[in-house]
Amino acid sequence: MTTAAAYAITAPDGSFEKVSIERRDLGPHDVLIDIKYAGICHSDIHTARNEWHGTSYPCVPGHEIAGLVAGVGSAVQKFKIGDRVGVGCLVNSCGKCGPCLADEEQYCLNGPIWTYNNPVEESVQVGGITFGGYSTEIVVTEQFVLSIPEGIGLDVAAPLLCAGATLYSPLRHWEAGPGKQVAIIGMGGLGHVGVKIAAAMGAEVTVLSQSLRKREDGLRLGASHYHATSDRQTFRELRGRFDLIVNTVSADLPIDDYLKLLSLNGTMVLLGLPDAALTVRANTLATRRRALAGSMIAGIAQTQEMLNFCAAHGIGAEIEVISADEIDGAYDRVMASDVQYRFVIDVATM
Amino acid sequence: MTTAAAYAITAPDGSFEKVSIERRDLGPHDVLIDIKYAGICHSDIHTARNEWHGTSYPCVPGHEIAGLVAGVGSAVQKFKIGDRVGVGCLVNSCGKCGPCLADEEQYCLNGPIWTYNNPVEESVQVGGITFGGYSTEIVVTEQFVLSIPEGIGLDVAAPLLCAGATLYSPLRHWEAGPGKQVAIIGMGGLGHVGVKIAAAMGAEVTVLSQSLRKREDGLRLGASHYHATSDRQTFRELRGRFDLIVNTVSADLPIDDYLKLLSLNGTMVLLGLPDAALTVRANTLATRRRALAGSMIAGIAQTQEMLNFCAAHGIGAEIEVISADEIDGAYDRVMASDVQYRFVIDVATM
Repeated sequence: MTTAAAYAITAPDGSFEKVSIERRDLGPHDVLIDIKYAGICHSDIHTARNEWHGTSYPCVPGHEIAGLVAGVGSAVQKFKIGDRVGVGCLVNSCGKCGPCLADEEQYCLNGPIWTYNNPVEESVQVGGITFGGYSTEIVVTEQFVLSIPEGIGLDVAAPLLCAGATLYSPLRHWEAGPGKQVAIIGMGGLGHVGVKIAAAMGAEVTVLSQSLRKREDGLRLGASHYHATSDRQTFRELRGRFDLIVNTVSADLPIDDYLKLLSLNGTMVLLGLPDAALTVRANTLATRRRALAGSMIAGIAQTQEMLNFCAAHGIGAEIEVISADEIDGAYDRVMASDVQYRFVIDVATM
Repeated sequence: MTTAAAYAITAPDGSFEKVSIERRDLGPHDVLIDIKYAGICHSDIHTARNEWHGTSYPCVPGHEIAGLVAGVGSAVQKFKIGDRVGVGCLVNSCGKCGPCLADEEQYCLNGPIWTYNNPVEESVQVGGITFGGYSTEIVVTEQFVLSIPEGIGLDVAAPLLCAGATLYSPLRHWEAGPGKQVAIIGMGGLGHVGVKIAAAMGAEVTVLSQSLRKREDGLRLGASHYHATSDRQTFRELRGRFDLIVNTVSADLPIDDYLKLLSLNGTMVLLGLPDAALTVRANTLATRRRALAGSMIAGIAQTQEMLNFCAAHGIGAEIEVISADEIDGAYDRVMASDVQYRFVIDVATM
């Protein structure tokens, strides 16, 4: 067993506090990671505050993990001590179902094992629930450990493990690239990475944001156009424009208005998971053979492909590094959309 | 000008009556068709009764037209007198926009010209509105005239011009074929043709119908499975089963329950256009990368492909032939789902 420092929350309305947790001894296929940086994802906040229900306390969130290999099990082949590595939202899956065999572990039919707040055997994590990246160390089976290429700093790489994967996967699946008109709804932690990746893929990128407040940043990160959705003119002007719209916003948007911005055969992909049901008109879909779809992170192979792509294109997240004792304040600032564009915890401060 | 007999309705709550209409003189590219059969589509009823609003009266519906060429303009190359031909939902389009240039005239950005109830110049149709197939003759530009192959009777071919095209197009677009699990919702005028075509494409076909009343027919037409959606067990048993669900029903269905029947990357396509908005949960889409899409008839090239496919596979609609004075009664029976499976008017009775 390895004792690690971690920051845990103990109640939905609690604050983060420093605790000690035990990480399991290395099995033959396990990798011990010395965590350097952990990104703060909106999902962390939903879970920490029990907004999705089912949170077990104490809860140690964090699924945007970057660090260095500090130990390897006897059978580990892919990694050696000192390697730059990452862990995203998944730490295991059944490995046997159709999606797992197709390298789509995030859609594992038996349920993937999430990096935090997932019930597991005591032998996997003492306490019977997975603990995430707000911690100095983590032990993960090598198949779910990603290699972070040289050329991306570990700090700006950390958010790619969730935000990068979440954007890269639908952009690839729906074939963003040269000649394609791609809109990214929302210029936050997910959206800003989407702008960078879609532009690097060669698509013509438009940001659809509530206001023009972050317009300069959007254009700097690769967007060709930036429109405010608070202006009704936006919806008239862009009607029928896009091959692909990627919605990174969890808020309850007038989905049908956005669908009308799709061209023939266009797809709008939902990445956020608003509580409220969405309202769609069949007519809007049928008259241009449009589609409304959803997508959830990425499989391990595609996450590695994303990291390699980002390294090749010099893409990292735009971040604000904080110390571990600033997590509570950072959560409040995320909720107020006051972050440019992802908080990353410097784990050395634990 | 050619005087033709037609059956027209003059008010939303009126009855069909025999009238005389004028068809235009043949322009160089025009084809005069001696109509033999006209199918009754649910859209005819919506329009005749002004349920979609905007109906001009008198209204002559009918966009499932089969007949013989009775005259050709001087420049017509594709057809000669006596040829077996059909006309579907479209009689023209702009020919210049992206969809038109991609042989997707049904999605013409400038609005296709619909076979009936579409405002046009007097030179196109005396009266300033297009009149459809409940008529002894029609004049259509050759580009929008389909060839009906030998081997399909004109009577069973007529409904293919709309119902066949409407089902064939999404089945092709979303690649129904060997190894694919395809569900057809609704075993009516559209659905029964979908079962035949999807089975002929090599897919494993399941019918999802309100009851098991038409089960024997469904299996005879090519379905491998038949489930009643009134039985909640159906939704539990078929969860995650289908690659493609084609919804032919216009009624307000619990869409989210059906979406859960899709497997990873599965798509549900809406062909009916219910008035009410649909309710969808983002979570249902995201957790299996599912999509909800819509589709509308087919372009001319694909409609011809469909007719050739149907001829090669011995597919026609299952029909009840009626005389022209039975249209009102047929409408009532369609509304009561009391038709197996498409009414076709024998135009010789006009």
